[in-house]
Amino acid sequence: MRVVDIIQKKRDGGELSGEEIAFLIQGYSRGEIPDYQVSAWAMAVYFQGMNARETGDLTLEMAKSGDQVDLSPIAGIKVDKHSTGGVGDKTTVVLAPLVAAAGVPVAKMSGRGLGHTGGTIDKLESISGFSVEMDRERFFAQVGEIGAAVIGQSGNITPADKKLYALRDVTGTVQSIPLIASSVMSKKIAAGADAIVLDVKTGSGAFMKTLDDSIKLAQAMVDIGSHLGRNTVAVISDMDQPLGYGIGNALEIKEGIDTLKGQGPKDLEEVCLILGSHMLVLGGKARDEAEARSILKTHIEDGTALEKLKQMVGAQGGDVSQIESPDTLPTAERLIEVKAEAAGYVEGIQAEEIGIAAMLLGAGRETKESVIDLAVGIHLSKKVGDAVAAGETLAVLHVNHASEGKVQEARNKVLEAYRISAQPVAPLPLVYAIVTKEGVTRF
Amino acid sequence: MRVVDIIQKKRDGGELSGEEIAFLIQGYSRGEIPDYQVSAWAMAVYFQGMNARETGDLTLEMAKSGDQVDLSPIAGIKVDKHSTGGVGDKTTVVLAPLVAAAGVPVAKMSGRGLGHTGGTIDKLESISGFSVEMDRERFFAQVGEIGAAVIGQSGNITPADKKLYALRDVTGTVQSIPLIASSVMSKKIAAGADAIVLDVKTGSGAFMKTLDDSIKLAQAMVDIGSHLGRNTVAVISDMDQPLGYGIGNALEIKEGIDTLKGQGPKDLEEVCLILGSHMLVLGGKARDEAEARSILKTHIEDGTALEKLKQMVGAQGGDVSQIESPDTLPTAERLIEVKAEAAGYVEGIQAEEIGIAAMLLGAGRETKESVIDLAVGIHLSKKVGDAVAAGETLAVLHVNHASEGKVQEARNKVLEAYRISAQPVAPLPLVYAIVTKEGVTRF
Repeated sequence: MRVVDIIQKKRDGGELSGEEIAFLIQGYSRGEIPDYQVSAWAMAVYFQGMNARETGDLTLEMAKSGDQVDLSPIAGIKVDKHSTGGVGDKTTVVLAPLVAAAGVPVAKMSGRGLGHTGGTIDKLESISGFSVEMDRERFFAQVGEIGAAVIGQSGNITPADKKLYALRDVTGTVQSIPLIASSVMSKKIAAGADAIVLDVKTGSGAFMKTLDDSIKLAQAMVDIGSHLGRNTVAVISDMDQPLGYGIGNALEIKEGIDTLKGQGPKDLEEVCLILGSHMLVLGGKARDEAEARSILKTHIEDGTALEKLKQMVGAQGGDVSQIESPDTLPTAERLIEVKAEAAGYVEGIQAEEIGIAAMLLGAGRETKESVIDLAVGIHLSKKVGDAVAAGETLAVLHVNHASEGKVQEARNKVLEAYRISAQPVAPLPLVYAIVTKEGVTRF
Repeated sequence: MRVVDIIQKKRDGGELSGEEIAFLIQGYSRGEIPDYQVSAWAMAVYFQGMNARETGDLTLEMAKSGDQVDLSPIAGIKVDKHSTGGVGDKTTVVLAPLVAAAGVPVAKMSGRGLGHTGGTIDKLESISGFSVEMDRERFFAQVGEIGAAVIGQSGNITPADKKLYALRDVTGTVQSIPLIASSVMSKKIAAGADAIVLDVKTGSGAFMKTLDDSIKLAQAMVDIGSHLGRNTVAVISDMDQPLGYGIGNALEIKEGIDTLKGQGPKDLEEVCLILGSHMLVLGGKARDEAEARSILKTHIEDGTALEKLKQMVGAQGGDVSQIESPDTLPTAERLIEVKAEAAGYVEGIQAEEIGIAAMLLGAGRETKESVIDLAVGIHLSKKVGDAVAAGETLAVLHVNHASEGKVQEARNKVLEAYRISAQPVAPLPLVYAIVTKEGVTRF
């Protein structure tokens, strides 16, 4: 088998066999196939695509390239949730305790944030003492006892994907749906999920800007799940504005706690109920979404969801009193209001700009080495559809040590992010479509 | 400027600026831009193409990447000729003395053969003592005195093209018309040509298998010539069978000598007259092709063309008596006839298979390190359109030291190369089209 023949076959629109994909990915992992052949292949895939079988085979090869977590010691159907990356997305903070309270075991490995999107691990570290590192035995034991644990990605998970992604990043081959889909799914498969709920963001602040592309990506990932025997459902949710009001680590934990009390922003609550319902159905704890939603609402209303968060925080060394009194979570020294220059209605909020503004204040990492400030961030005062008067506050910057230059830059980014219309604007939908192996349901 | 932006621009069908192309090629030449970005870019070019301006700029950047020969010390319009590679193609051996006799200076750098195609330099070395190495002063002096010199490529000509071609070869990006066209033309530009006649082969034995693709390649090269101020004409000639009858170094020199005497194969003579006519017109030695053809025929008939070959051979240290008595050129020890298995008419002769058969006998190089045998090769007895009886000789193998296994393999290849039809077959056209900056003339 020769790599150049595999490249040419894909270039000419052919279907690669499982053996060819295994040869390519294994050889690349071992350093026997050079970057320059793999980047040419990736560009050929960009133009010619891959079918569901090829994409599934690629996913499995990348999943097999490193450690594979075996979650079978944990009883029940392990349902993982993955978001394609948004701003203000604290759904994992809400969903881990919420679905665990409903009996679906959550054994979750999460990542740190980079650039304009935050990471669940960083957010949870806002809680004093909370540890995201533990060995596998303790991880499994915690899930067995409490029903939920969220840890950082450890070990050597999908090294082939890491290597391929780094290459794609510098060769113009990131924006290929089968390559994005296999990258996401390989990590979920290696992490041991039995079933997967995907939150595919769509809109100006998302990786996929159009609904059609978001649906195509969702279908590709659902197809991979089918191919590899993992029941997968994708929810296409809005990212034409940030989710909820808080952007920044402690700000998002506070909003997550509010939501578990039934006092959170309606958009965040609704997205969590939709994602959580699918997790319960896939986890075999509800017959359908209506029943699942009712179960989840009960756990919010009776306090068992919040209690589950406290158990999880306690088990991971965190200060449970901070969950009871969120005011004791890290707080910024200065609050700076960003005010509307003209009256009107909020038509859109560029989520990416808001994420970058929060990063500039220290909430996120500009590079992998950046140290983040857990207290800082942005709290939106207005969302899409809201009326705004001239001089009224659009958002509040939560600032600690950022230089005046950075604060000014963040302030300008927030102002630029808000698109104000003279005409009244309807609120944005939260969810545009659900994609399952049976098909696409648009709303 | 970032390479990834250049790759993405081309990937999305954009037109690269001269600055972007210069940045890419200069950076790649200096080793500052890695192979893996250039291979992804080349694959994007494969799918999105390049327009005439981009292809011209790429050509010029590659021409400028190494030594550039300045032929201005030689008086007159220096017309170069280039063939895209065929089997049995000894046109340079004929054309160098023939057009020099007509007053067009020929300062030609030629290559060695590799694989199934022979190289002019190897062919000329069949002449005892003939040297293809000389310094630039002697090269210019010889062209000034005699009108013709053929030497090997020396120095550091188009290193960027060499590096890019080697990369394309292993990344499935060879078959891109703008990349092929710029590779060919960059070498001609760097070698100092004022005007260029291209012999673009088409057919089963050619790089370009279809007439449409051959015309597209020719147009791309003619466009580059226009863009860079080099008058360029392309002749699309047949490679559905080898050119002439002899394949192998000394065999081809003998056929070239016959042709200069007016006693060569008609197809070879005709192709040389067509290519040579365009060279004379571009070189300002004839008003049109009809006048040029008449001038060339006169030089064949009155012996001045052959005399010019003798002068050139003499000046380059070769044994002129071998030109007078071609029987004294290297001769193989054994002649093995390949006989037809059934009667019929020759419908096609796979030139590539014949070239490989000659290589197996030692006439060509399997690898760059192979030592070639100047005496051996294949002499065809039948060409397309010829009737053949069962048991009649199709071709004769000229064999020296090849093992019986290699001889058997060569014999089988020759038999496989001949396609015999039960029905009479018309001879093949020699030239299908002429491409100039004014347009395409098909015959």
